[in-house]
Amino acid sequence: MASINCDMGESFGIYRFGDDAACLPFVTHANIACGFHASDPVVMRATVRAAKNAGVNIGSHPGLPDREGFGRRAMRMTREEVSALVVYQTGALQAFAMAEGASLSHIKPHGALFGMAQNDYGVAEGIADAAEVFGLPVIAYSDCCMSEVFTRRGIPFVCEFYVDIDYGDDGRQIISRDHPAISAAAVAEKVRRALREGMTRSVSGRDVRVVADSICVHSDTPGAVEVARAVFETLRAEGALAA
Amino acid sequence: MASINCDMGESFGIYRFGDDAACLPFVTHANIACGFHASDPVVMRATVRAAKNAGVNIGSHPGLPDREGFGRRAMRMTREEVSALVVYQTGALQAFAMAEGASLSHIKPHGALFGMAQNDYGVAEGIADAAEVFGLPVIAYSDCCMSEVFTRRGIPFVCEFYVDIDYGDDGRQIISRDHPAISAAAVAEKVRRALREGMTRSVSGRDVRVVADSICVHSDTPGAVEVARAVFETLRAEGALAA
Amino acid sequence: MASINCDMGESFGIYRFGDDAACLPFVTHANIACGFHASDPVVMRATVRAAKNAGVNIGSHPGLPDREGFGRRAMRMTREEVSALVVYQTGALQAFAMAEGASLSHIKPHGALFGMAQNDYGVAEGIADAAEVFGLPVIAYSDCCMSEVFTRRGIPFVCEFYVDIDYGDDGRQIISRDHPAISAAAVAEKVRRALREGMTRSVSGRDVRVVADSICVHSDTPGAVEVARAVFETLRAEGALAA
Amino acid sequence: MASINCDMGESFGIYRFGDDAACLPFVTHANIACGFHASDPVVMRATVRAAKNAGVNIGSHPGLPDREGFGRRAMRMTREEVSALVVYQTGALQAFAMAEGASLSHIKPHGALFGMAQNDYGVAEGIADAAEVFGLPVIAYSDCCMSEVFTRRGIPFVCEFYVDIDYGDDGRQIISRDHPAISAAAVAEKVRRALREGMTRSVSGRDVRVVADSICVHSDTPGAVEVARAVFETLRAEGALAA
Repeated sequence: MASINCDMGESFGIYRFGDDAACLPFVTHANIACGFHASDPVVMRATVRAAKNAGVNIGSHPGLPDREGFGRRAMRMTREEVSALVVYQTGALQAFAMAEGASLSHIKPHGALFGMAQNDYGVAEGIADAAEVFGLPVIAYSDCCMSEVFTRRGIPFVCEFYVDIDYGDDGRQIISRDHPAISAAAVAEKVRRALREGMTRSVSGRDVRVVADSICVHSDTPGAVEVARAVFETLRAEGALAA
Repeated sequence: MASINCDMGESFGIYRFGDDAACLPFVTHANIACGFHASDPVVMRATVRAAKNAGVNIGSHPGLPDREGFGRRAMRMTREEVSALVVYQTGALQAFAMAEGASLSHIKPHGALFGMAQNDYGVAEGIADAAEVFGLPVIAYSDCCMSEVFTRRGIPFVCEFYVDIDYGDDGRQIISRDHPAISAAAVAEKVRRALREGMTRSVSGRDVRVVADSICVHSDTPGAVEVARAVFETLRAEGALAA
Repeated sequence: MASINCDMGESFGIYRFGDDAACLPFVTHANIACGFHASDPVVMRATVRAAKNAGVNIGSHPGLPDREGFGRRAMRMTREEVSALVVYQTGALQAFAMAEGASLSHIKPHGALFGMAQNDYGVAEGIADAAEVFGLPVIAYSDCCMSEVFTRRGIPFVCEFYVDIDYGDDGRQIISRDHPAISAAAVAEKVRRALREGMTRSVSGRDVRVVADSICVHSDTPGAVEVARAVFETLRAEGALAA
Repeated sequence: MASINCDMGESFGIYRFGDDAACLPFVTHANIACGFHASDPVVMRATVRAAKNAGVNIGSHPGLPDREGFGRRAMRMTREEVSALVVYQTGALQAFAMAEGASLSHIKPHGALFGMAQNDYGVAEGIADAAEVFGLPVIAYSDCCMSEVFTRRGIPFVCEFYVDIDYGDDGRQIISRDHPAISAAAVAEKVRRALREGMTRSVSGRDVRVVADSICVHSDTPGAVEVARAVFETLRAEGALAA
């Protein structure tokens, strides 16, 4: 069983980003940007409303305080700073959910914050501190500082698998500014293999272990809607779509 | 009966502002900055903790998105923008309160947002929209758009009186970057008159009507702690200190 | 004779805005955003390069410090604040021009800063103060605080005319978030009438006086490139395209 | 011979930082913050004026786009991003200098940007790219990526020595949020030894090699003015104060 999560609400002011409305029908969990790496209060309200109306789970998607870099430039942060910025952003989003009669279902760190948390125990602890404040599970990653810290502290988490990001031989996602285009058939194949075998092919052609509790799709991948639809239909066909 | 409210947590990063620790013993309601006109997540957490430990009520102090101008430069904002920014900031603060086992007691708009809400119905409605989301009362002002809108909509509010800001003949506060120094005796006299007669002296020497449900003191007034202490002791001596 | 000016370089981080490359061939003066209402240092460098390569004049397009509102929300600013922010932004852009072996040709205030300068002498004086520092002419507006202040102080300026913004009966542009779509034929007619008669039709159908030293086109108007091309071809056909 | 450089103009909005006026008499080179890690356009103008009036050299002090962290949190930045942000900030400052009839004398990267440039060739190249645009020397550090890149590319630079920062056994400064207090006698001793022997004592008691072309003092060190005065008087007594 796997859910489908997608980063949403990453527009800002007059700037538009991604096609949330088109992706929502194929997603179970919306990770909604919280005004640091992207979004603003007006966009957050509209995005929470749209997710609520689509019956999609609403999670916070806190990022680094770096709008210019879209939260994709790693910054040195202490555990104390990380936990405070996740509490701040998640609290802000929670209020918009409350305003719509909804509540939050999860936290998913964004971009470089997610990457830092894979490799830095202090950052992972800071995210855990914030998750405990809200009693929310985290969308995280397998075999990294996050999974280790969350397991030890009893923070519930799920591990995500990417269909639109390449993998290295270490089983980690390879970050790049541009997500590669990918066909629906290739998406379906990747999803099936991740689910059934817990494996995916790295860029160098090796099989690497992955955990696919949730499939992540990016709304700025070329053909994002078709990717999301392919994931959705594959999971349904497999009888593996988490409610 | 009157409470004593004070803006707090207006430090930012390495910058310090005001002496919160010294003022807390003489205050009943802390209006805690929420990261837009001042503060940051780390400062917010520390300020909420300090207020909780001092047994002081914790309120949000949302401001305009203008750190450089400390939220004191009026900006044209729609009702929709105002309500979203108050929900955002109050939600963020609420999460820090929740983390400390506390809950919010009130909302007090900051600086130019407060001034705009006195004179612009759209801004006042936006604040009311946000107050309704949280079910919280607002520290506001008498005989203005805020009091009119809140009364009509049934939003609970209290009106504040300033001991460290001059009044014009229209009964409105005269905004300036620098709060005038004032003696403890003058503070006591002002507070007594506002409580007993609902009057204060304007800069031109006229008596103007004021409503003093809550006395506001500013932590950056010269001798702020002595001003706060004088308000506190006067209210206690009058048997008028709201719990 | 008239020039054609266009706001450019208003992308920011990962966000794209307008189609500068497509508009450049039909423009004589690029107003390049300077990192306050839009843009960032990397975008500024690329935009200056593109304008230089297209042989288009490079001007600064300073805006209010309000990225979320795209510099379109009026803010209360003193003359001192306005002059400092225009000097800052224009200086930053000048360095990118210098790096490309180019120099600046003009200053055009953006959005609400432009609108404020039409109606507020302090703002107009602040812009004049900055223009004097650089010895640059300003793209401004007729019959307003700017034209009055610039004329009195001997600051060179040109007045702009809009083909993609409606006019009120007072001869002022009517600001809205969305520029109306307009046909190439209507653009040509508007430009000819503004040039030959100094007149345009207001939204209520009255003829109002305009000064069209420079025609302004907006890169986010629907069909912006066609609008720019129509202005360009009309001016050329009229023999009125300023070099 | 050595100059004395000091970071200045690091106030922001209503926030004050350091006592520039008191330090100016003992400084030869002011590194003036440029609005990213600290400062704003109004503060920059005032600081440039004060430095000009004191006859002190005016240099840019560009920092990371992280006001909340005061530019002290390392961020992953490309060479392209670094050069653009240094050009931007230095250009902005240059305009304020031009407005006062002054010109810039140097560039000194701030905080984490300085530290990153010691260890990352891309960052050092980016700073060199910007220095070339302005034809300005850089205040840098010995035996690091900066000194290597600048030497290879023929970018003039001087190496700085710290009297109010501890040294590690690797001859590098040990960054901490708080600068240790230090007596005037200890300052004089450190300066003399750095000048005469090119040596200083590390925190573990070892002698490490240093290059003291310029002595750096920090305006937020406890007793900053006394530290600056001690450096100044020592250099004068040694006949080693660079004009």
